[in-house]
Order: sequence, then C-alpha cells, then structure tokens
Amino acid sequence: MKFTLLKSDPLSKARAGFLETDHGVIETPIFMPVGTAGTVKAVHQHELINDIQAQIILGNTYHLYLRPGLEVLQNAGGLHKFIGWDKPILTDSGGYQVYSLTEVRKIREEGVTFRSHIDGSKHLFTPENVMDTQRVIGADIIMAFDECTPYPCDYRCAKKSMEMTHRWLARCCKRFDETEPLYGYNQTLFPIVQGSVYKDLRLKSAEAIASFEREGNAIGGLSVGEPAEDMYAMVEVVCGVLPEHKPRYLMGVGTPANLLENIALGIDMFDCVMPTRNARNGMLFTKDGIINIKNKKWEQDYSPIDENSDLWADRQYSKAYLRHLIRSKEILGAQIASLHNLHFYLWLVKEARKHIVAGDFYDWKNKMVVKLETRL
Amino acid sequence: MKFTLLKSDPLSKARAGFLETDHGVIETPIFMPVGTAGTVKAVHQHELINDIQAQIILGNTYHLYLRPGLEVLQNAGGLHKFIGWDKPILTDSGGYQVYSLTEVRKIREEGVTFRSHIDGSKHLFTPENVMDTQRVIGADIIMAFDECTPYPCDYRCAKKSMEMTHRWLARCCKRFDETEPLYGYNQTLFPIVQGSVYKDLRLKSAEAIASFEREGNAIGGLSVGEPAEDMYAMVEVVCGVLPEHKPRYLMGVGTPANLLENIALGIDMFDCVMPTRNARNGMLFTKDGIINIKNKKWEQDYSPIDENSDLWADRQYSKAYLRHLIRSKEILGAQIASLHNLHFYLWLVKEARKHIVAGDFYDWKNKMVVKLETRL
Repeated sequence: MKFTLLKSDPLSKARAGFLETDHGVIETPIFMPVGTAGTVKAVHQHELINDIQAQIILGNTYHLYLRPGLEVLQNAGGLHKFIGWDKPILTDSGGYQVYSLTEVRKIREEGVTFRSHIDGSKHLFTPENVMDTQRVIGADIIMAFDECTPYPCDYRCAKKSMEMTHRWLARCCKRFDETEPLYGYNQTLFPIVQGSVYKDLRLKSAEAIASFEREGNAIGGLSVGEPAEDMYAMVEVVCGVLPEHKPRYLMGVGTPANLLENIALGIDMFDCVMPTRNARNGMLFTKDGIINIKNKKWEQDYSPIDENSDLWADRQYSKAYLRHLIRSKEILGAQIASLHNLHFYLWLVKEARKHIVAGDFYDWKNKMVVKLETRL
Repeated sequence: MKFTLLKSDPLSKARAGFLETDHGVIETPIFMPVGTAGTVKAVHQHELINDIQAQIILGNTYHLYLRPGLEVLQNAGGLHKFIGWDKPILTDSGGYQVYSLTEVRKIREEGVTFRSHIDGSKHLFTPENVMDTQRVIGADIIMAFDECTPYPCDYRCAKKSMEMTHRWLARCCKRFDETEPLYGYNQTLFPIVQGSVYKDLRLKSAEAIASFEREGNAIGGLSVGEPAEDMYAMVEVVCGVLPEHKPRYLMGVGTPANLLENIALGIDMFDCVMPTRNARNGMLFTKDGIINIKNKKWEQDYSPIDENSDLWADRQYSKAYLRHLIRSKEILGAQIASLHNLHFYLWLVKEARKHIVAGDFYDWKNKMVVKLETRL
C-alpha cells in the first residue's frame, strides 16, 4: 500500500491524497460505505461503482465470520470474489460488534468469548485468530483487534482497556507479519488508537500506536455517544501525533458535518452506517440540510428529490413518492434513500477534496457545516 | 383500447396478440408484475423496463386508496406520474384485499364497510366509489368491484355471491360509462367472472359477464387454494364462453406451469405476487425447475445464478452469494431474487408467445411444464 499526499490546506490540517492498493487507487479524503455482511444494504454492486462512485467499501469480520463463515469465503477465493467487487475493501476486526451485539461475553487477556447474536453459539476471538480470519476474508486493509470503550467510561477503566488494546496490537502485528495473504494480493494492518475522551490517554495511545509503524493508523472509540466537541478535541490531539505521511482513518464517523470538521483536523478516511441506516428511516442528507421525508410537509411535494443531482434516482423520483414508499415500508424506499445518501456522502468528500486541492477548503467547510445541519 | 389476435395455436386454445393502450402496446400472452402500493417490491422502475422488460404493471385500489390516498394521487396527475412509469397500468379493484386483509367488514348490497389494516379507520367501498377511485388512480385498465369467494365455498354461497357480483357489475359499468378519465388518456373496465369451482356457475357467470360487452374480461376467484385441476377446468369452461376477440385476464395466477397451462386454455393476461413474494423467501424459478436457494446444497455453489440468462444480475451474482444474502435477510437478496424471478416470468411468456407464433406451442408447453415443476 502506498499513500501519497497531494496537497494540504493552508488554514486547516485538511489534506488530499492518494492511497494505492492492489485493488486500485483511493482518492482521499474518502468515505467508505459500510457493507457489514458482504452487501451495502439495499444497494447493488454496480450502483456502488456507477451511481455512488464508491472507491472502497467496508466488511465486518464478526458478521462475515458467523455468516457465511470462513469455509465459504475461503473457497470463494475471498470476500472480493464472493460478493463480486474488485475494488478495495477494508474489514473492521469485529471488536466493536463483539461488545455491542453479543449478550454473553467475557473479556480476558487472551481474548473475548461471546455468543453469536444469530444462534447463541459460543466463539472465541483473540488478536491472533482475528488476524487469521481477516487473512481468509482477504480485505486490502484489515484492522487490529481492539477493545472499544463505551461512553461514558471512567478514567481508570479507559486506561486499563487502552493498555490491553496496545498489548493486543503487539500480538496482532506479530501474527500478521508471520502470515501471508492467501489470494495473491497484499493486505495491510491498521492499528487503532483508543483512550475514550481523555486527552492524556489519547496522546499516549497515539504515541504507542504510531510506534508500531504500520502503513496507516485508525482512531476508534469515538462517535459512541460523546459530544461532538469531545470527539473533535480527541481527533485533534491524536492527529498531532500520528505521522503525517500515513493515512488516518476515523472509525464509525459520522454526520456530513462531522466528516468536514474531521477532515479539517487531518482525517483521510471515514466509515459510518448513518447514510444507509438513516436512509431506511427516511432521513435524507442534502447540500442544503437534512430532510425527514416522513414529514407531512413533503406529502404533496412532487419535485424531484434533487433536480440538480448527477444521480439519476434523485432526478427521477419525487419527494412525495419517496415519502409514500418510506411510510409504507416499501423496499424501494430503502433502495432510493440509500442510493441518495451514499451518493451525497461520496459527493461531499469529493467536493472537500476539490477545495483542498484548490486551497479554499477552510472557508468552504465553515459555510457548508452550517447548511448541512439545517433541518429542512 | 384495441386487441388484435395475431396467431392461434393449432393444438390448443393458446393465442398471441397485441393489446394497444394509450400508454403503449402490450404483447400477449403477458405477465404483469404486481406493484401493490405503487412499487413492484424491491425493483426500480428502470429495472422493470430495461432488465425485466415489463410491459404493464399492476396497482391495487385498496392499498393506494389508503396510502398515499386519493388527494396525493390526483394532485400528482395520477399513478403513472406519481411513480414515474409511463407504460400501461392495471388496477385491481380492491375487492380481494377488502376480504383478505381487513378484520372487521360487513358486506351488504350497497357495498362493503371495512376497517383499514393500517390504522383501523372505517371505510365504505361501493361499486360506484371504486370506479371513481380508479378514475383518480388513472390506470389504463381498471377492474370491476366484485366479491371474491374463498375456497372452499358451498354452492349456495357461491351462487349468491356471484349474483351480487353481477349486480355490482351493472352498477360499475353505469358509473364508469357516466364518468370521464381525468388525465387525458383512455381507461377501460374489465368485468370479472366468479362462481367458485362450480362449472354451471362459471358458465352462467361467463355468459353474464360477456353480455356486458366490455373491451376485455377477467376471471377471478381462482388460485385461492383449490387444486390446479379445478382451476384449469373452470378456466376451460369460462374461455369457451368469453369472446375470442377480446383479451382474457386470469387474476392472481400463478406458478410458471400454471401460466403455460392457462395460456393453452386461452388466457392472455396474468398477474401474481408469487415471483416477488417467493423471491424474498429464496425461491427461484428457472428454466430447469425450482431452486430453494436457502438449501445447504447451494452453500458453496459459486456458479452464477444463471450463466445463460440475458439478465445481468443472473450472470453477475453467484448462487452461494444469493444464498448468503437471503439467509442473512439482506435487502440485496430480495432485490436480486425479485429481479431474477420477474425476469424469468417475462421470459417465459415471451417464449410462449414465440412458440404460439411459430405454431409449436403445445409440444413445447408439455415439455416445459415438467421441467418447471422439478425441484432442483
């Protein structure tokens, strides 16, 4: 993997770059649509490429390990082949899901035992076997197995957890470096900064993570309920430590405004279920603000979802029709709204990149964030 | 509306024709995908046209009347404009839904009072107001308001119900003929033959319905649980009476084999939720038989869903991947399987038409029905 910085914004820490993988080049800053179980919900692969212009998508180790399972994935030749996607993929390690989805779990130094949310079967994730699993899944970028602290989390607890995450990282790196990719292309491992909302912990964690000298670095444990200001403060501290010439990935973030603010702090990569999950509930993100399409206000608005969009669905379908579909819980409503939101997120990071390259990102960002948070 | 018979099969009653409406020509025999609430579930409008080659779709009066409601539809300029579909539409009258979906209902000579399955609100459907409602929805072909008998249904009950359906038809025709279309194109009204599984009632009903001399005729109250042989026997009796130079529509039917057998008996038009509903549960209809994609058998079958299909989704996605999606209840599974099944249904009627035109329908049909019912 090779990361090249193209341009930095003079008034902020925003940067534009290229990330080269064996499955193609990613232009940063980038948003990565979430395809938890090997599908970005309600969106065809060709729509991701042609309509949304996705450059990389996410998969999830926890979900894919449980279903379809490693045997199916390995015999398919990895996740890319299984789902029919030959652009880059990043897999989350499953750390977050083990804590958020499973009922019975035990966290020990060795790893985490948990019961599947699907059938209650018992499993053990360790730093080592999560590396092996991600070798089988075969994503271009794989994530370290970490412990993601909840919010709020007291200092002592956050510190203890962070220290275990660091010890686990050493084990992840060891296993990763001892093993080979299975399908003839390279994989790279990103470690994850933790430390909850404590500046000194975040600083310490960023230093520890940077010392592993991997090809890219990630920030986890944010956007878990803390105020946005806390998130920005943590990202600022961490970005001050993580090396400039490597990509920085902020996990699980966020709203369109969150994206722009964090780009301004030096983040290059994002993922979040928000554009797809909120789409299914009728929340549309647009250049002018947020639309709750279920509102009575749109009942007889027969204008296109966005007549100036370059997404066909935005021009073809009306707000009134989309409102009807979402209210009626019709699958087509989820399809249209997901297309719309993902297209918008990808448009937004592309625009951000343009403005970074043009040198006027900071002013543009400050104007945009006000509009993006307006309720229409 | 104009119906032209192109060719009749020498060894069966099958016929190929054209049905001309103000929204375009339909080649018969035809299958009409069901778009109950103004959307064919999980399928985009452009996919209906380009991938499935649908020539006409169905809407449902009961559902559309409740949601989005008549004001929204009328101000949109009718259902075509509301959903963005400028090919023909047929609307079912809501008779079937009033009986099958609503809890509290009272059937009287005047009409049917019922409570909405959505919010429990009370409504009255009469032959007259159902015509008015279908004027507002604006389908090219609209259906008479009838009573659909359940199966089994005793003779006395079936006779009584049929007679009311005939009296209601007179009221439907009167109201329809006294009113004008609202959006500048023509609409036509099809009456519906009832009579349960009793030959003499079906004969009587077909004669009564034919005497109204509408532009097309429909057969209702079949495929409601009776053996296929009873359905075929009733269709045969009715087709012997309904005029040859008018299209015959068999409502709510059926499996691929049902389609071919009924085409052989003289049916020109079909609709059914089976290809979409069963798709969402993982049942795929193919040239070689029926696939239950959830079966373990397909777990590691990485071959395309159908490598010889002219549907891109059949060639792009593997059986193993579709199985994973359906088992995981992923929306993309419903999308792919719905595309597949609808494409197959439209392919099947197109092939039937080719064979009718070529003069070898009967033999082809007899070979096909065996394959179509095979469990793969």
